[in-house]
Amino acid sequence: MESFRTVSILGVGLIGGSIGLALRERGLAGEVVGVGRDPASLEEALRRGAVDRATTDLREGVESADVVVIGTPVNRIAEDVRRSAELAGPDVLITDAGSSKRQIVEAVERHARGASVFVGAHPIAGSERRGVAHARADLFEGRACVLTPTSRTPADRLRRAARFWSSIGCRILEMGPTEHDEVLAYTSHLPHALASALAGSIPADWLPLAAGAYRDGTRVAGADTGLWTAIFRENRGPLLKALDSVRERLASFQYALMTDDEDAIRRWWDEAKQRRALFDELSQGASPLAPKSP
Amino acid sequence: MESFRTVSILGVGLIGGSIGLALRERGLAGEVVGVGRDPASLEEALRRGAVDRATTDLREGVESADVVVIGTPVNRIAEDVRRSAELAGPDVLITDAGSSKRQIVEAVERHARGASVFVGAHPIAGSERRGVAHARADLFEGRACVLTPTSRTPADRLRRAARFWSSIGCRILEMGPTEHDEVLAYTSHLPHALASALAGSIPADWLPLAAGAYRDGTRVAGADTGLWTAIFRENRGPLLKALDSVRERLASFQYALMTDDEDAIRRWWDEAKQRRALFDELSQGASPLAPKSP
Repeated sequence: MESFRTVSILGVGLIGGSIGLALRERGLAGEVVGVGRDPASLEEALRRGAVDRATTDLREGVESADVVVIGTPVNRIAEDVRRSAELAGPDVLITDAGSSKRQIVEAVERHARGASVFVGAHPIAGSERRGVAHARADLFEGRACVLTPTSRTPADRLRRAARFWSSIGCRILEMGPTEHDEVLAYTSHLPHALASALAGSIPADWLPLAAGAYRDGTRVAGADTGLWTAIFRENRGPLLKALDSVRERLASFQYALMTDDEDAIRRWWDEAKQRRALFDELSQGASPLAPKSP
Repeated sequence: MESFRTVSILGVGLIGGSIGLALRERGLAGEVVGVGRDPASLEEALRRGAVDRATTDLREGVESADVVVIGTPVNRIAEDVRRSAELAGPDVLITDAGSSKRQIVEAVERHARGASVFVGAHPIAGSERRGVAHARADLFEGRACVLTPTSRTPADRLRRAARFWSSIGCRILEMGPTEHDEVLAYTSHLPHALASALAGSIPADWLPLAAGAYRDGTRVAGADTGLWTAIFRENRGPLLKALDSVRERLASFQYALMTDDEDAIRRWWDEAKQRRALFDELSQGASPLAPKSP
């Protein structure tokens, strides 16, 4: 029944903790080891049953692992891959869960040992909440996980990474790291930036007159500052392009308003409404392309 | 027990239908009359129990009413108030549920008869869905309802309007029509415009990689085109100002990204995050200032 002997998870927060819970609930691993810097978080991961064993010592954490998953913030992932690759055995697979990919993959591939064991991954699941307290065994159920192999990625590691992420519920997609970052700038980083722009634009005194449209539109503005600052910085090129296109779209709406052009306002709204309807259709398909709940 | 003899509702859609359900469920009215142009919608309102009686004839619908509620789209409200005022008895109270107020109130007050019986109102509740099929008796439970009296509004009508809207669950606020429109441009119309801008900016091919942030951020982009075109046009001045401020906020974020200014990105995110946390606090108070669900 066990698919993996020892899986080590670096960074047992919302994502790492959910991976641990999924592995343990499905009986997929002989042992799940949590590795982190904060003893209190590791204790909480043990209490929640997200890991079998926990340590703050990286060597102790990864030396017997056949799979190492890096669940740390995006600006720490490449370094954590490199250090884990040096301490783990030669057969290890290292994969990550970072929301940006190009810079991470490039940095990992500057080191031969890292390049020979690593497969970049991004399971498209999350929450505005952080920490193992909010981890869930079903977080990855039906979610897309993008693998971002390059010409240097060994074929056997790519197969093992696909097997690992699909074992905890993901539907596997493959694309290059650069393409991943361009797409996610629009589908994830832009929605976060707009939620924050909206939340920051409304005077505090007026909040009692905000309702559902505000509530939903700003939900992710409550996400962790450090995590999102790191993601925005890692993917700032593609994100700047996505921001330009949304500002252009707003400018054309403003022009239609200024000229009181009813047809143009209707067309502007209708086009987006149809796009949104398509998303709902895709989400409701038999094999869901997008998650049903946050 | 009955607070009102006959309440007539013009436009028995999501809002009008929910008013009818709330009145009937609470036994507040001797009779609830639905008035509309579409016989099929009126039949559905009868089937759902939102009204006791329905008619497409305005005179028949309003002549015996002590309260008339206008639930039609914002660009039709002023005319519907004027026509109802001419056909109803001298003691009638007419109120509305429009999302914009200044133009409506000004147009109504250009006619002496309308001015003498009308109190502008905006119950802050709704949904991206339309029609009596989605009406709910508890739609107004705990929601703010803004009344927008002017110097010409009779004090007794204002008292009756406050009694009417609070009887179906609303918490009453009062402000001038112009102030209402400035605030709602930010708290409601801007979130709708941004949801649509976001939905319209993401290429269809990339939707399979959109998840919770996109889903929540674009939910209201599915709302009715005609209704929202009318609201945007009625309130285009204040909305243009709100759009300018969100575009400025996006521009300062883009500048921070371009210069890779970590501190500026953090501050930008943190400020909005704190504002969003304040909204949650206000919503969770004993007497909720904002609705918990869309």
